Amino acid sequence: MSLPRIAIDAMGGDEGVRVMVEGAALARRRHDRFKFLLVGDEARIKQALENHPNLREASEILHAPDVVSGDEKPTQALRRAKTTSMGLAINAVKQGHAGAAVSAGNTGALMAMAKLALRTMPGIDRPALSALLPTLGEHDLIMLDLGANTDCDARNLVQFAIMGAAYARIVNGLESPRVRLLNIGTEETKGTDSLRDAANQLKELAGDLAMTFDGFTEADKLSRGDCDVVVTDGFSGNIALKSMEGAARFVADLLRRSFSSSLRSKFGFLISRPATELLKHHLDPNNHNGAVFLGLNGVVVKSHGSASALGVANAVAVTARLLEENLTERIQADLARLGAEAIRTSGRGKSAPVTSEDAA
Amino acid sequence: MSLPRIAIDAMGGDEGVRVMVEGAALARRRHDRFKFLLVGDEARIKQALENHPNLREASEILHAPDVVSGDEKPTQALRRAKTTSMGLAINAVKQGHAGAAVSAGNTGALMAMAKLALRTMPGIDRPALSALLPTLGEHDLIMLDLGANTDCDARNLVQFAIMGAAYARIVNGLESPRVRLLNIGTEETKGTDSLRDAANQLKELAGDLAMTFDGFTEADKLSRGDCDVVVTDGFSGNIALKSMEGAARFVADLLRRSFSSSLRSKFGFLISRPATELLKHHLDPNNHNGAVFLGLNGVVVKSHGSASALGVANAVAVTARLLEENLTERIQADLARLGAEAIRTSGRGKSAPVTSEDAA
Repeated sequence: MSLPRIAIDAMGGDEGVRVMVEGAALARRRHDRFKFLLVGDEARIKQALENHPNLREASEILHAPDVVSGDEKPTQALRRAKTTSMGLAINAVKQGHAGAAVSAGNTGALMAMAKLALRTMPGIDRPALSALLPTLGEHDLIMLDLGANTDCDARNLVQFAIMGAAYARIVNGLESPRVRLLNIGTEETKGTDSLRDAANQLKELAGDLAMTFDGFTEADKLSRGDCDVVVTDGFSGNIALKSMEGAARFVADLLRRSFSSSLRSKFGFLISRPATELLKHHLDPNNHNGAVFLGLNGVVVKSHGSASALGVANAVAVTARLLEENLTERIQADLARLGAEAIRTSGRGKSAPVTSEDAA
Repeated sequence: MSLPRIAIDAMGGDEGVRVMVEGAALARRRHDRFKFLLVGDEARIKQALENHPNLREASEILHAPDVVSGDEKPTQALRRAKTTSMGLAINAVKQGHAGAAVSAGNTGALMAMAKLALRTMPGIDRPALSALLPTLGEHDLIMLDLGANTDCDARNLVQFAIMGAAYARIVNGLESPRVRLLNIGTEETKGTDSLRDAANQLKELAGDLAMTFDGFTEADKLSRGDCDVVVTDGFSGNIALKSMEGAARFVADLLRRSFSSSLRSKFGFLISRPATELLKHHLDPNNHNGAVFLGLNGVVVKSHGSASALGVANAVAVTARLLEENLTERIQADLARLGAEAIRTSGRGKSAPVTSEDAA
C-alpha cells in the first residue's frame, strides 16, 4: 500500500527550513515510502533541497509567501491561513492533496487553523494535543492535552479521555485502557470543580466507553507504567511535560558532573558508556518528538519547536504510522460505536467556537 | 542564643508517630539546641519515645485526642482545631508555647488552620507554600505556591512574588532576587489572564519591590540557575514539583537498569560508586524536605507525607534555621519597608476569607 504524502510546514520551528528539510530527508533515507509536500518559501526550500537529492525526487514544493510567527495570536494567524506555510500545509490535508500535516510552528495557531479547516469529529468540541511518554511499564503513556487548550471544563476532559482511550486501543493494542485524571492529590475532594465533575462523569460512563477509569493520579506517578492514558487541561499538561523534560536534563547534567568529579569516576564512566548511552537515548526529547492533535478529521502532528533534524524525522515517522493505522477513521468509528450522542450530552458545558482562548 | 522549641504534629504523615518521633530524635542527635513540644496521642508518643531517651529529655508532650485525616476538607478540619494534633501544634505557636510548628499532615487543613490561628501579615491575603529546589546555579531556586492555593488571581501572584523575593534575600543573601512567573511560554500573550495581569503589575512595581522581574519562564528551565524565585498558582506548582520528582526517580530507575544490563556496566557502576551516590543524595526528596508557609505571623513548616525520619529531621533543620534567621520578623519588616499600603492596593481582586477553596 502506498502511503499518502505528508505536508511539511517547512518554515516552522526555531531553525526553520534547514532543520525541517534535513529532518524530512532523514526520514526519507530511512524509508522510501515517504513522499512530501514541502510548504513554504520556494527559493529557500529549493536551496535546502540541493543537499538532499534523494528527498527532492520524493517531494513537491508548494510556495507560501508568509510565515506564522511564534508570538502571533491564533486569531491573527487565522486571518492569514491562505498565505502562510502553516495554513497552506493544513489546507493541503483538507483538499486531499496530502494525507497529513507536520508543523513545528506556533502551537496555538496550529490548533486554531487545524480546527477551522478540518473540523472536529462528531461529539468532540476541541482537539487535544497528545504525546507518548516513556514509562517503566510495558507501554508508553498517552498524555493529553499538552498545551492546545489552556482552560478546560469537565466536558472537554471527558472527551479527551475518550479520544485518549481510542488512541491507546489503536497504538498500544489495549482492549480497555486504564485512564486517570491528573490532579494534585488522589482524594475525591482534591483539585478543581472541573476535575471533580469529570471524574464523576467518567466513573458513570467508563463501562460504556471501553476504558477503565482509575480516578486521579499525581504527577510523580506518571512513569510507573500502571496507567495507559492520563488526561489534563493543556496548561497543567504543558507544565507537567516540561517539568519532566527539565528534570531529566538536570539529572543528566548532574550525572555528567558527578562522573567528571574524579579520575576514578571518569574511568567508571568510560567503562559503563554503553549503559549511559542507552540512558541518553531514552531521555533525548528528539526520540519522543511528534505530538498528535486528536479529535480532528485529519492527521496533524506538532513537532517540537527546538527539535533537531532527528526529532523532525521522528515526528514524520509518527505521522506515517498514524496514516498506516488509519487513526482518524478508527477514532471516528470508536466514537460512533460509543454513541456520539451519549458523549455529546455527557458534558455540562457548551460547544466552544474557535477563539483566541483556544490557546493564547 | 537558645532556640525556641518546635511543636511537632506527631500524628501527621503516612507513617505517623513512629517516623515523626524518629525524625525529631535524629534532628536532636545532630544538634542539642533543639527542644520539642510533641503533640498527639500521649500514650503512643510515650511509647515511641522509649527508644529515644535523648529526645525524651528535650521534649514535652501535649496530648491531642484527635487527628486530621488525609482526605478531610479544610473547613471540616477547622472545626476540630481544638482537639486535633495539627490544630494544637499551631495553637502552641499562637500562644507562644512554641516558636514554630512542623506537620506532615493534610496540606489544605494545615494551611487553613495556620491562616486562621496566626493570621496573614499586613498586605498579604493568602499564605503560600514554598520550597527550595536544587539547580545547576549557585543558589537553590525558591518556588511558590506549591499547593496551598488551588486558584490564584493576579493579586495573589504578585504577593507571592513579594514574599518569595523577601525569602530569597534572607536565605540566599541576594539584594535584588531575579523573579519569574511560571507559564506555558515566554511570549507576553501566553497563559491565563491572571498570569498576564500579574506580569504587567510586576513589571511596573519591581523597581520598588527590591526584585528584578524577568517575565515568564517555562517549566523545563527551572533548574538552570538563572532565576532565584519562581511564582505560580498552587495547582500548577504542585504539578510541576511532582513531575520533577517523578522524572528524577524515573531517570534514577533507568540508570539502575542500564547499569545492571551487562557485567561491564556493573563493573563500571561499582568503580563510579562515589559519583552515583552523590547523585542519589542530590535527588532524594528527603534531603530537600520542609516546605515553608510564607506570609503568616509565625513559622509553619510542612513535611512531605511520605518523608522518612531523615526527611523529618531535615524539615526540623529548615524550621530551626528560619527561627534563627528571624524569617517572620524580617519578611514583616520587608513588607513594611516596601509599603504595605502600596502592595494592598496593587492587586485588583478582593481580600479572600478562609474558605474550603483555600485548598480543597
